[in-house]
Amino acid sequence: DHMIIIGWNEKSRTIIQNLMKTESIILIDETLESHPIKADNVHFIKGRANKDETLWKARISTAKIVMITSDQNLDELQADMHTILTLLAIKGLNPDIRCIAEIQTSEQVNNARRAGADELIPANALTSAVLMNTISSVDAVSPLLDLLAELKSNHLAYIQVESFLHGKDFQVASSLLLKENNVILIGIKRGDDLIVNPPKNLSIKKEDQLLAISND
Amino acid sequence: DHMIIIGWNEKSRTIIQNLMKTESIILIDETLESHPIKADNVHFIKGRANKDETLWKARISTAKIVMITSDQNLDELQADMHTILTLLAIKGLNPDIRCIAEIQTSEQVNNARRAGADELIPANALTSAVLMNTISSVDAVSPLLDLLAELKSNHLAYIQVESFLHGKDFQVASSLLLKENNVILIGIKRGDDLIVNPPKNLSIKKEDQLLAISND
Ligand SMILES: [Ca+2]
Ligand SMILES: [Ca+2]
Repeated sequence: DHMIIIGWNEKSRTIIQNLMKTESIILIDETLESHPIKADNVHFIKGRANKDETLWKARISTAKIVMITSDQNLDELQADMHTILTLLAIKGLNPDIRCIAEIQTSEQVNNARRAGADELIPANALTSAVLMNTISSVDAVSPLLDLLAELKSNHLAYIQVESFLHGKDFQVASSLLLKENNVILIGIKRGDDLIVNPPKNLSIKKEDQLLAISND
Repeated sequence: DHMIIIGWNEKSRTIIQNLMKTESIILIDETLESHPIKADNVHFIKGRANKDETLWKARISTAKIVMITSDQNLDELQADMHTILTLLAIKGLNPDIRCIAEIQTSEQVNNARRAGADELIPANALTSAVLMNTISSVDAVSPLLDLLAELKSNHLAYIQVESFLHGKDFQVASSLLLKENNVILIGIKRGDDLIVNPPKNLSIKKEDQLLAISND
């Protein structure tokens, strides 16, 4: 029940430093010459992650989670192709493992899902959204970066509609949730559509999900 | 009063597609052979962005904003070095221009500031934060990505405290803002600290800034 992290870069460095206190981690990287982190529960395997041999060495059959970061030495499309090959190899050897992968191009998202990714992190889309918010913001600091930094201690999540909210409009629901549950209501997800700050006359249905910030 | 975007990649593609309806844009890229976007108000200059000659061609002296995206063909440190050189060249030619830059490594953040960056977007830190959230909870990533997608039409910004909010607590201010101004209150920025979903007894001062989502 260890965690496998594929690729050594700024992202995996940050993630390993955050998780190494509580998790047993195996890092796989092809180009690193020596173990980059000295710690008892961080192991290093030099090798290509889309080869069965490398994955067996990383004890893929007993791992609980694999995270694939994009290869920084390739262009965006090539990096995604490597990620997808690695996903295929991992899911071929252990179909039940939870696989989180970074993806660079929007065109390869569907293939990454077909290869078995459980979660895809669209790194470029994320950065673009922050860049856009920064351009349109007149403030010295990006409000979005401030908010993202605070979302470590405040949890952004979808919550179910409790019965006292059935049929209430957004404004009433917002007041009730803040008062009763200490939760900030941001929007309503209905089917696949998220409606942030919906029109006043829209009332909440019990099948909706509520996008909210809580501080538990 | 045009906008200059440096580097052609998934991020600049997304940003240009979002901004081209309203802004006049000049794209600078060294390796692209031909103009990637056919539109009257998107111009393309082939060249290295840290050369004065290229920047003059992009009419740096009359531009209102420059955005530098990381070179995807370099490793993280080399990409940051290129970004910093480009910042130096831009600010040398036009010290007043607003410069937004993507930065990959935490070690080069200070140098990027010294070179004159007005805003730095820590792309890897952002992606790491989302990857960490995904590991720790099953639904942590999709609500955040959903929200980011919606922030194109809904604006996240700091707003001034209007007089009717002086001395009000967060809960009362939240209800008033939603009812009167159609704005969702997220948190309070006091000095350098952003407090998301603050304690109930915290009352708003006129020097505070309010982090809010509006849909204008
Ligand atoms: Ca790359
Ligand atoms: Ca790179």
